[in-house]
Amino acid sequence: MEDHLILCDIGNTSYHFLKDERATKEHVATFDPSTFKEEVYYISVNPHVDTLIEQLDNWHDLRECIAWPNYYGTMGVDRIVACEAIENGLIIDAGSAITVDLVVNGVFEGGFIYPGLDAMQATYRNISSRLDYSLNFELDLDKMPQNSRDAISYGVLRTLYSEVMRHNQQIYLTGGNAKVLSQLFPTAIVDEHLLFKGMKKMMEKRC
Amino acid sequence: MEDHLILCDIGNTSYHFLKDERATKEHVATFDPSTFKEEVYYISVNPHVDTLIEQLDNWHDLRECIAWPNYYGTMGVDRIVACEAIENGLIIDAGSAITVDLVVNGVFEGGFIYPGLDAMQATYRNISSRLDYSLNFELDLDKMPQNSRDAISYGVLRTLYSEVMRHNQQIYLTGGNAKVLSQLFPTAIVDEHLLFKGMKKMMEKRC
Repeated sequence: MEDHLILCDIGNTSYHFLKDERATKEHVATFDPSTFKEEVYYISVNPHVDTLIEQLDNWHDLRECIAWPNYYGTMGVDRIVACEAIENGLIIDAGSAITVDLVVNGVFEGGFIYPGLDAMQATYRNISSRLDYSLNFELDLDKMPQNSRDAISYGVLRTLYSEVMRHNQQIYLTGGNAKVLSQLFPTAIVDEHLLFKGMKKMMEKRC
Repeated sequence: MEDHLILCDIGNTSYHFLKDERATKEHVATFDPSTFKEEVYYISVNPHVDTLIEQLDNWHDLRECIAWPNYYGTMGVDRIVACEAIENGLIIDAGSAITVDLVVNGVFEGGFIYPGLDAMQATYRNISSRLDYSLNFELDLDKMPQNSRDAISYGVLRTLYSEVMRHNQQIYLTGGNAKVLSQLFPTAIVDEHLLFKGMKKMMEKRC
């Protein structure tokens, strides 16, 4: 394995690159992967991007490195790769969706998918103009809300928090909203390179 | 107060009528309230309908019967009226939004707003076509999911369940999705007329 390989994690909205330990981001709607001439090792959960890059010889899909018997067939490769990065804990990957996955002694024990924070705010706004609020991350989690903004923030954040805390595990936070969510989970380890770590580990083991 | 009065609860999508203990429903988009000639006592959380009926002399807004110091100013009147119906418990009103409100010894102690089940499914679908699943209400709540449909169902239902159960209260279920949600909360009291009960109680006390 080369030292200077380029890794890429393709989500629903962005390409996330890692080259020489430096992370950069490109928007899915505007970036043209055929302009990229270097060798890229990628994972993708984006069906549209998949069709664009499957014809490009320098883009290498890391799906083939996955130990599939440890996961389920329709599981997002981003979640799998995050699980490969840790030995024990609960991974919260907060992007356009928020995935929560449990790993015990290096084994994936299941996980769930919650909508991303932007998607949740849009959901309330679409139900009624009276529910159009920005989320309050300084919400008191121990008190049932007495105002509209907190009633919505609690609906989004406290429900997720109650379920996550129930597992009593070390939490790993990654994804675009890792930092904002760390206000809720102060003992969590924030690691924005968690997926790249999982990709590297997986390549060393199996590709 | 007349025995044969007509009560109406107007939500984001429907008018819910009660006349002579019989409940009927009309769609907000198609029903014309001016065609209705009888006296109607209503609550509404729908700003569009508000503008239609405020000019109609036979439609009486029950907002004026609310003991406002016990609630907060932007709180939906449907939630307030539901709280008036019970003395102790957690009310889950599952419609286009799911409101969860706590009442202790007849006093509103706060509450939160979660998106409705249809809205949540649309949210996943809008994030990615790969997240387009119907919810599984027979989900095993005690096991982290190992397939996509359960991963999403758990994201919607288990998070809400974890928060609700934490309060250790008698649960009251009302609203259009009360019955489907009762699969999750088997000890809940399902009462589709809860809001009408609250409206009646409030009118007896204060109007």
